[in-house]
Amino acid sequence: MQEALASWRPAIDETIVEWLPQEIDAAYLEDFFGEPRFEYDTKGVQSALSDPIWDLLERGGKRWRAVLFLVFIEAFGEDPEAYLPYAIIPEILHNGTIIVDDVEDGATMRRGEPALHRVHGEDVALNAGNAMYFLPLKILTHNPANLSEETRLRAYDMLMYELNRTHLGQGMDICWHNESAVRISTQQYLEMSACKTGCLGRIVAQLAAIVAEQPAEIESAVATYAEQTSIAFQIGDDILDVENSLGRAGDFGKEFGNDIREGKKTLLVLHAIETADSDRATRLEEILATDENTDADISEALQILEDAGSIDYARECALELAEQARGEIHGIEDELESEAVEKLLSFTEFVVERDV
Amino acid sequence: MQEALASWRPAIDETIVEWLPQEIDAAYLEDFFGEPRFEYDTKGVQSALSDPIWDLLERGGKRWRAVLFLVFIEAFGEDPEAYLPYAIIPEILHNGTIIVDDVEDGATMRRGEPALHRVHGEDVALNAGNAMYFLPLKILTHNPANLSEETRLRAYDMLMYELNRTHLGQGMDICWHNESAVRISTQQYLEMSACKTGCLGRIVAQLAAIVAEQPAEIESAVATYAEQTSIAFQIGDDILDVENSLGRAGDFGKEFGNDIREGKKTLLVLHAIETADSDRATRLEEILATDENTDADISEALQILEDAGSIDYARECALELAEQARGEIHGIEDELESEAVEKLLSFTEFVVERDV
Repeated sequence: MQEALASWRPAIDETIVEWLPQEIDAAYLEDFFGEPRFEYDTKGVQSALSDPIWDLLERGGKRWRAVLFLVFIEAFGEDPEAYLPYAIIPEILHNGTIIVDDVEDGATMRRGEPALHRVHGEDVALNAGNAMYFLPLKILTHNPANLSEETRLRAYDMLMYELNRTHLGQGMDICWHNESAVRISTQQYLEMSACKTGCLGRIVAQLAAIVAEQPAEIESAVATYAEQTSIAFQIGDDILDVENSLGRAGDFGKEFGNDIREGKKTLLVLHAIETADSDRATRLEEILATDENTDADISEALQILEDAGSIDYARECALELAEQARGEIHGIEDELESEAVEKLLSFTEFVVERDV
Repeated sequence: MQEALASWRPAIDETIVEWLPQEIDAAYLEDFFGEPRFEYDTKGVQSALSDPIWDLLERGGKRWRAVLFLVFIEAFGEDPEAYLPYAIIPEILHNGTIIVDDVEDGATMRRGEPALHRVHGEDVALNAGNAMYFLPLKILTHNPANLSEETRLRAYDMLMYELNRTHLGQGMDICWHNESAVRISTQQYLEMSACKTGCLGRIVAQLAAIVAEQPAEIESAVATYAEQTSIAFQIGDDILDVENSLGRAGDFGKEFGNDIREGKKTLLVLHAIETADSDRATRLEEILATDENTDADISEALQILEDAGSIDYARECALELAEQARGEIHGIEDELESEAVEKLLSFTEFVVERDV
C-alpha cells in the first residue's frame, strides 16, 4: 500500500489541479461554473476559493482515499487511469470536512501550520470548506469516463445517503463534546465513528464499485470493508494518543494526553467509565469535564484507562473490525484481481499496527 | 401571490415535519438515515439537528420558495399536492444558507432573535446548517411522486450545478467585504447576486420544471425568470435600506443606514463610486472602510448615493430585471396555465414595489 501511495500521488495531484486550478482564470470559471450572466470576479474567486483550498492541499495529506479508490478500480479489473477524476471526489470532500471541523472544534493548528480559518478568516475558510462539499460532486455532471445514466444516478443516490450520515455523525460528536456528563455507550461511539469517519471510507469504496459497474453484493462488501477499516483506523488514533502518553508526563516538556485534555469521549474513555469501579469512573468524568487540568490529573486519567483494561479493549475492538474487514474481502476475492486483494488486506493491518 | 402564500403554508410546514420531525426517534433515524451499524444516539441527534433547525423554522419566514415551486407546478398543469416533498427542498436549502451565512458574517440577530450560533453554539449551528444542504437532497433518493430515472438524474445534475454557483457567489461577496478598497463593477455585483441569490431561485423553478417533465426551453425560461426576479428582490432590499434611512438620522434613536454601517458594497454604492466626482467617491469609500462612523458620516454617505442618482439607477435596474423576467413568462405563456401565469407576473411587481 505504501508503494501505491507514493506512485499515484503525482497523478492524483495533477487531476486535482485540472478540476480546481491553483490559478483561476475566466476560461476556467466559464467552463466549470457555466457562462457568467454578467461578469465574474476572477480575483475574488482566487482568494475566496483557490487560495485557501490549495493552502490546505499543499500542506500534505497522504491522499490515501484517492489511492484506495484506485486500488479498488484495479481490484475490479479496470484501468485506474481512466477513473482518476472520480478518485479525487472523496479526497476533496475529506479536505472540506477538515476545514469545517476545524472551525467547529475551534482547532488552532492543522498539518503543522495554523488552521485554515486562522490564516484566511473564518468566513473564507468556511465557505471554501463548504464549496469543497459541492465542487467534487460537480465532477459527476461532467461525466468523465462516459458513464451510463443508470451508473451516474446510482452514484448520486449513494453520495446523498452517505453525506447525510456524515453530518449525523458530526452532530453526535459535537453534542457529546458540549455535554459535561458522559452518558453514551461504546456502541453509540462506534455508530458516531461509522457515520463521521466510516461514511467517507464507504464513499471511496462504493464510488469505485459503481463507476466500475460492479453488482450490488460487491458494492456492499467493499463498503463494509472500508467502513470497518476506517473505524479501526480512528480507534488506532485514540489508542496511540494514550499509549504515547503513558508514563511520559513532562518528557522534554512535550504535551501528552491531548485527547484527555480536550475532554474527548473516546472508545477507551467510554469503556473505562462502563467498567471501572464507580469512584474511579467518576474521577475520570471529572477530569474530562475540567478545562484546566494539571499534568498529574492527566496522568491519573491515563492510569485509570490502563487499569480498566481500556487500551486492550480498544485494541481488541480495532483488531476485530480489521478482521471483519478482511473477511468482507475474502468473501468476494474470487471476483477481484489478486494483486489488489493483497493491498486491500495489508491496508487493514497497517491501520492497527502503526506507530504514528 | 399573497393568497397562495397563506393558503399553502400549513401543508408546507406539515411536509417539512414529515421529512424532518421536531421530535427525533429511532424509527425516524432508521427510516431516513438507514439502519444503524451499532446504535444511534437519538437524544444527540435531537439537540444537534432537530432543535436548531426547528428553532429557525419556527421563527417564521414566508416559505415563498416552496410556494413559488407549487405555483410553477400549477402553471405546468400538474397537481401541486403530489409534489409537496420537492417544494421543501429549496426551502430547507435556503434556511441552511441563512445559518451558515450568519456565522460567516458574524451576524448577531436573525428574525428578531439571536442568530442561531449564538443560541446553540457555533459548532452545532454550523453542522445543522451544513446538514440542511444535504437533508433536502436526500428527498430525491426516496423518490416521492415516483419520478423516472431520467428525471431524477436531471434533477441531481441541475442541483449540483446551481449549488456550486451559490458558493461562488458567497465567496465573491465575502472577499469583497474583507477588502477595504472598492475595486468591483456593477456588473460583477450583479453576477455575485445572480450566484448567491439567483441560484436558489433557479433551483425553485428548474426543480418544478424537471419533476413536471417540462422541455428544456421551458426549464430555461422559468430559471431565468426566477434568477432575474431574485436579483431584483435583492436590489429592492438594498434600495429600501437607503430610502428608509434618508433624512432619518436620529429618528427615535432608530438605527439607520445599516448597509453603509456594515460597509456593504451594494449596487447603489458601486454605481455612486463609478459615477460621482472623484472627491465624493473617495469620501464614500472612506466611510465604507471605517468601522466606527458617526451618524453624520452615515448621512453624508446616503447623500452621496442620492446625489449620484444611485437610488434611481438601482430602481431602473431592478425594474428592468423584473420586466425581463415577465418577458420570459410571456414568451412561454401559451404553454402555461393562465391563472398561475398571473401569479408569476404579479410576483415580479411585488419585489420592486414593496415598502418592507
